[in-house]
Amino acid sequence: MAEKLKVLLILGSIRDGRQGLRVVKFMRRKLEERNFDVTLFDPLEMNFPMVTQPVHFYGPERKKAPKILVENEKYVKEADAYVIVSAEYNHNVPPALTNLLDAFPGSAYSFKPSGLVTYSQGQFGGMRAAMALRAITGELGCLSVSNIFGIPTVQHAFDPEGNPQNSHMESGAKKMLDQLEWMAKAMKNHRDKFGVPS
Amino acid sequence: MAEKLKVLLILGSIRDGRQGLRVVKFMRRKLEERNFDVTLFDPLEMNFPMVTQPVHFYGPERKKAPKILVENEKYVKEADAYVIVSAEYNHNVPPALTNLLDAFPGSAYSFKPSGLVTYSQGQFGGMRAAMALRAITGELGCLSVSNIFGIPTVQHAFDPEGNPQNSHMESGAKKMLDQLEWMAKAMKNHRDKFGVPS
Amino acid sequence: MAEKLKVLLILGSIRDGRQGLRVVKFMRRKLEERNFDVTLFDPLEMNFPMVTQPVHFYGPERKKAPKILVENEKYVKEADAYVIVSAEYNHNVPPALTNLLDAFPGSAYSFKPSGLVTYSQGQFGGMRAAMALRAITGELGCLSVSNIFGIPTVQHAFDPEGNPQNSHMESGAKKMLDQLEWMAKAMKNHRDKFGVPS
Amino acid sequence: MAEKLKVLLILGSIRDGRQGLRVVKFMRRKLEERNFDVTLFDPLEMNFPMVTQPVHFYGPERKKAPKILVENEKYVKEADAYVIVSAEYNHNVPPALTNLLDAFPGSAYSFKPSGLVTYSQGQFGGMRAAMALRAITGELGCLSVSNIFGIPTVQHAFDPEGNPQNSHMESGAKKMLDQLEWMAKAMKNHRDKFGVPS
Repeated sequence: MAEKLKVLLILGSIRDGRQGLRVVKFMRRKLEERNFDVTLFDPLEMNFPMVTQPVHFYGPERKKAPKILVENEKYVKEADAYVIVSAEYNHNVPPALTNLLDAFPGSAYSFKPSGLVTYSQGQFGGMRAAMALRAITGELGCLSVSNIFGIPTVQHAFDPEGNPQNSHMESGAKKMLDQLEWMAKAMKNHRDKFGVPS
Repeated sequence: MAEKLKVLLILGSIRDGRQGLRVVKFMRRKLEERNFDVTLFDPLEMNFPMVTQPVHFYGPERKKAPKILVENEKYVKEADAYVIVSAEYNHNVPPALTNLLDAFPGSAYSFKPSGLVTYSQGQFGGMRAAMALRAITGELGCLSVSNIFGIPTVQHAFDPEGNPQNSHMESGAKKMLDQLEWMAKAMKNHRDKFGVPS
Repeated sequence: MAEKLKVLLILGSIRDGRQGLRVVKFMRRKLEERNFDVTLFDPLEMNFPMVTQPVHFYGPERKKAPKILVENEKYVKEADAYVIVSAEYNHNVPPALTNLLDAFPGSAYSFKPSGLVTYSQGQFGGMRAAMALRAITGELGCLSVSNIFGIPTVQHAFDPEGNPQNSHMESGAKKMLDQLEWMAKAMKNHRDKFGVPS
Repeated sequence: MAEKLKVLLILGSIRDGRQGLRVVKFMRRKLEERNFDVTLFDPLEMNFPMVTQPVHFYGPERKKAPKILVENEKYVKEADAYVIVSAEYNHNVPPALTNLLDAFPGSAYSFKPSGLVTYSQGQFGGMRAAMALRAITGELGCLSVSNIFGIPTVQHAFDPEGNPQNSHMESGAKKMLDQLEWMAKAMKNHRDKFGVPS
């Protein structure tokens, strides 16, 4: 497989002072070390609007669809895998994350794997948000791999450049990414040879 | 109890052509028939912004907090009960709903009940969104009553004025609202006499 | 309120070497300190069988229902509140717990609160099991109070007699029990005065 | 691929009069039509006991493990895919199902897909049970495919021999099984060539 695998790295927070930025910097490096071709979706940097119609509601030609939706749908479609970095608010995921994910059709995500990275300032590592993501990724069609990389007390886990401050971060990311890479290759090989069910 | 019970009716969708508007019209009438004092939170009409800091992150005096957050926190606090009308997107709730709910502190919602009304155009009545709301309302402190009013094929269930088109709507709303009213009174009586735990 | 509040303390594990026994001993003391009248449901000690029919499926007179179901239904009905102590297996609750809870009708649990205590040997304190319990208790009608007492690395948290080995246990139990006691009293007062909706 | 794909078909109910038997008969035929080699796990017929230790807790050689666990672990390991047919009790899955699934290690299920079939006598087709299964299958490592085959009013959907009584059953099963078959092949090919991450 000469071609690099494409991964869409999605940051699920737009809040002031969001810790997710540190996590994303770390995950980006881990993905690049594995030779993934990484695209970042940061809803804050993208200035991603509140969506009043998902892009596929504008019809197969996406006529009259906002440019930002049409242009970014391409990245969702082209990705071979997704890594979702999510905060946890009130035992669910941030609205900025669902607003982004819901904007694109299931067909763009399907028959590919996703990896979940959740974090919290408390001790439970965003595991309630992870449970919500099991359901969301399942429905979108980008099945989340078994291992969830959960990060408790994230404020102490990374420096602002995303350098890990304890040894669990490397091993936690590795376990999840080993599974993601395996699934991404398995599914890409099968898509390339046989296409996908309609 | 001479005073009317206050209920905050929350519409969880801002999408074009949202069916939730019909459901909200119906639920408002049902609540008013029970002599509830109803306030509607419609994030579209309120022009509710994407929240980058919940109101309580601005400190106890809410200094520098956006006016729209400060003004609406009052309604959340004053409510004796909540009715949440939610669509279902990808087996979770709409971002417009979590964006609104997350904007206010748990202390504003706590020791009060909520009632869940979920709908979908398909056959399962938004039950996956309802499961997400069990977790959210639990964490916020406004425990959702047992009965969930789930509305399948919502596009056929109401006319644009919120008039029900089949007999299940009245009985479905009644069952949930009987429980909500009971809980709202039980908790209000106890709050009035004993306050709430800190 | 001269009468003691009755609480049913439910242990959700029958596995060899179950840590839940330590947690239950601790919780029992905490409940008795608050002057609750505690009944323990331990499915192992009760020799509770795999249920092939819940007790209410045997009709209003419970004819031909197994004695163990009929006798214990009384405790479920009489309780003013429930405390559920649960392990976590594969991101859900133990079968011994659902087997016990499912054996009795929603009407026996309804219009009362429950408190969730979850534990794990790992770092996330059984929070995935807790999310499953939000749904279960919601449906049963014994709404779970907001605070969840989650216990990570339970094997280090208590000695075999249920004596806490770190300071978080007292404060964690207190927060949840303050809410449970408040809710139990609010709902009991209202039940005593007005009954419950049919 | 001359070799047949092996699927483990799991029936998640032992209750008297269980409708799941009809669903299983139907699913078995649908799987055999696709040339899957089907093994059925029926906890009632297997006389599967309440598990007090999962098989892997007995050590790598399974010494002293109950024979029924050791013998059946082989089928879990050998399977290329799983189809889980589940009832819904109180918004979760039956204890007979979790008792069976929890008895075997994640390593036996991993890097394979699963398909969810949920049913209910009511209108929501067991969708709350399905949400619980998203979490369980995710943790076990047998990722559930996107499409969930949900069967409302199951008592009218099949005759006792598992013959469908309406046209939705064929199309519902097909959609899910198309995805399952695709995933099973993709993962089997990859396992055969590259093994699995440790």
